[in-house]
Amino acid sequence: MVEKIVELTGTSTSSIEDAVELAISRASVTIDGIREATVEQATAQIEKGKICGWKVTVKVRFAIQDQVHE
Amino acid sequence: MVEKIVELTGTSTSSIEDAVELAISRASVTIDGIREATVEQATAQIEKGKICGWKVTVKVRFAIQDQVHE
Amino acid sequence: MVEKIVELTGTSTSSIEDAVELAISRASVTIDGIREATVEQATAQIEKGKICGWKVTVKVRFAIQDQVHE
Amino acid sequence: MVEKIVELTGTSTSSIEDAVELAISRASVTIDGIREATVEQATAQIEKGKICGWKVTVKVRFAIQDQVHE
Amino acid sequence: MVEKIVELTGTSTSSIEDAVELAISRASVTIDGIREATVEQATAQIEKGKICGWKVTVKVRFAIQDQVHE
Amino acid sequence: MVEKIVELTGTSTSSIEDAVELAISRASVTIDGIREATVEQATAQIEKGKICGWKVTVKVRFAIQDQVHE
Amino acid sequence: MVEKIVELTGTSTSSIEDAVELAISRASVTIDGIREATVEQATAQIEKGKICGWKVTVKVRFAIQDQVHE
Amino acid sequence: MVEKIVELTGTSTSSIEDAVELAISRASVTIDGIREATVEQATAQIEKGKICGWKVTVKVRFAIQDQVHE
Amino acid sequence: MVEKIVELTGTSTSSIEDAVELAISRASVTIDGIREATVEQATAQIEKGKICGWKVTVKVRFAIQDQVHE
Amino acid sequence: MVEKIVELTGTSTSSIEDAVELAISRASVTIDGIREATVEQATAQIEKGKICGWKVTVKVRFAIQDQVHE
Amino acid sequence: MVEKIVELTGTSTSSIEDAVELAISRASVTIDGIREATVEQATAQIEKGKICGWKVTVKVRFAIQDQVHE
Amino acid sequence: MVEKIVELTGTSTSSIEDAVELAISRASVTIDGIREATVEQATAQIEKGKICGWKVTVKVRFAIQDQVHE
Repeated sequence: MVEKIVELTGTSTSSIEDAVELAISRASVTIDGIREATVEQATAQIEKGKICGWKVTVKVRFAIQDQVHE
Repeated sequence: MVEKIVELTGTSTSSIEDAVELAISRASVTIDGIREATVEQATAQIEKGKICGWKVTVKVRFAIQDQVHE
Repeated sequence: MVEKIVELTGTSTSSIEDAVELAISRASVTIDGIREATVEQATAQIEKGKICGWKVTVKVRFAIQDQVHE
Repeated sequence: MVEKIVELTGTSTSSIEDAVELAISRASVTIDGIREATVEQATAQIEKGKICGWKVTVKVRFAIQDQVHE
Repeated sequence: MVEKIVELTGTSTSSIEDAVELAISRASVTIDGIREATVEQATAQIEKGKICGWKVTVKVRFAIQDQVHE
Repeated sequence: MVEKIVELTGTSTSSIEDAVELAISRASVTIDGIREATVEQATAQIEKGKICGWKVTVKVRFAIQDQVHE
Repeated sequence: MVEKIVELTGTSTSSIEDAVELAISRASVTIDGIREATVEQATAQIEKGKICGWKVTVKVRFAIQDQVHE
Repeated sequence: MVEKIVELTGTSTSSIEDAVELAISRASVTIDGIREATVEQATAQIEKGKICGWKVTVKVRFAIQDQVHE
Repeated sequence: MVEKIVELTGTSTSSIEDAVELAISRASVTIDGIREATVEQATAQIEKGKICGWKVTVKVRFAIQDQVHE
Repeated sequence: MVEKIVELTGTSTSSIEDAVELAISRASVTIDGIREATVEQATAQIEKGKICGWKVTVKVRFAIQDQVHE
Repeated sequence: MVEKIVELTGTSTSSIEDAVELAISRASVTIDGIREATVEQATAQIEKGKICGWKVTVKVRFAIQDQVHE
Repeated sequence: MVEKIVELTGTSTSSIEDAVELAISRASVTIDGIREATVEQATAQIEKGKICGWKVTVKVRFAIQDQVHE
């Protein structure tokens, strides 16, 4: 079995977990077989001294179905 | 004073914090004096494009009571 | 435009996100223009086998207003 | 000349070299011009105290033919 | 908003900046919405004791338009 | 489920894979439920210009059965 | 002799070297005795497939004159 | 031959070397065959502007005698 | 509670520990509440084949009193 | 006793272990007392979707006999 | 084929690329077959708030001709 | 000016500083112009639960006099 690992970012106004969820649900529209997403970086976006959002970078791993896209 | 550091993983269906809590509460049954647990890696487990769980790797630090186990 | 990056720690009894929020709101009293805070380390503080708090180290980035303080 | 680097995993029951070979031969069905594959991680999968397989993560570098796919 | 990060290499006979420019202009033919390219590695290619070219590895970040390609 | 990760070294006169095998088979006498062993370092031991052995450092991950040993 | 190291970012439309120069000349208005600035990261900012600027992160080291500011 | 590597901390009021010595002498009560201890981190503990102690984190490597403890 | 972490260098003719002590005693004139200093790098300065001094880089952590200085 | 560490690359058509062997046997013609060679990087060279060779980078450690060459 | 990798520094008053060029042209007087030089670190040297030079550290890779020097 | 950086190990029965001193004094017999030695790793060698020696790995930097030896 061969898998591919791609790097994505996701953002959410509520939490780190939610930002990961968003990136995954977006990627799942076109990629089947996603197995896991490891958090590489988590950054709070700040406005006027308050956190207005979370941006995460994740490494997403999924089984390759028919072909490895470039 | 001498401390030991061990590496554990924990899983939870809800959050990163909860997965750490689980690993610690499980370890505390047999290890006294745990002081802190640093998150080394946090990975979302995915099924059908949804996060179904969080798996964390933590480094757990505790004071050595009577003897250093191998 | 020139920015400065400083390293802070924050603590909270509830979550990683909340510990970052605290560090930022505290820093914002005297620093204008904070844009983001990247989590460098997240550590659970443990008492009697329970997480009693979260301590985070963040790198905070902000635009320099009038002068670069040493 | 422009190249792209993608991250793949491959598995084999025999050796690290064989697991890399599998990932490459699978990727070569759809990607031309692969030049090299650097081993990022090698993990033995264990069952009943025996290695039942090797899983490798590789960074695969190839020349871009017509277009850079997203 | 979701972004994807891909790793490319570019080469130029004149400078590090020019090698990055080449990789980006090549990638922009098929990828819209590229925002930034971070230099991961810069290597001088040498012939007879002279630099004959620069090869750079960059991480390119762009907004995802319609779908996440595998 | 909670897992523990321990660091071991193993040596073999023949190959990297064999040195990992030895460390695992030795550890499996007293540890049940070993799942994987990731190679952290591989070093050839040299005598008179020939490789006389391979020494590997591996991180071994296993499910915790009854209790977390210190 | 005691020195302090601070982390700054600078931007320029022309080159990596120029972005470092800008950060330093800006910092030198209020900090005496700057000795060196090591490039930690260099990122090209892209618009419509062209590099429109360079942003660098530098670690700036300077001798402390009278007192160490917090 | 199989070895195990464990991570310990030790503290001393006098020096880095002494803090390593303490961690080792404490561990040697219950662990035979310790061969080396590599310094991973050395931290001075400060009170009123004076170093009141050194805390070191070491990776301790020892030959496994009879069995690999979990 | 919020803390700040700053990076300093110190030099001494005698030892690594002494170079850390110097950086801390110098910083303590203007910064209250320093708690610890972690050694990031230790470099021997050499003249005519003899060590003539030690230069250390330390990360100094202290509680913030009234305000976070830029 | 003083040792020196040098970085070499070796290539082989068969395996990672064999590529290390080649680098060592070549180095041993002029260097006595080589003790170990740690694998820093292992890269498969690919032609037409097949591995045609392995290239390894190793750090070779040896006792210094008469003098330290520049 | 066996290659050796050595670490050099070079300085220039004009640019990062020029400092690499200088190190290479100096090394090429006595070393044949240099193939590439990877930038490990680039540091601006500052005087009175202006960059007066660039110092680079490079890893230089070359084919070994007759013998591996210690 | 061009410098070379070589990696050496040194051992001493007394301290980390002394092991660096030994490596440098040994290297200075044949290398002129050594400027600094940065500690990369410090390992205590243990016998019967006591530290019997310190082994350090240092990166030694020196100005190149006449020629760059391979």
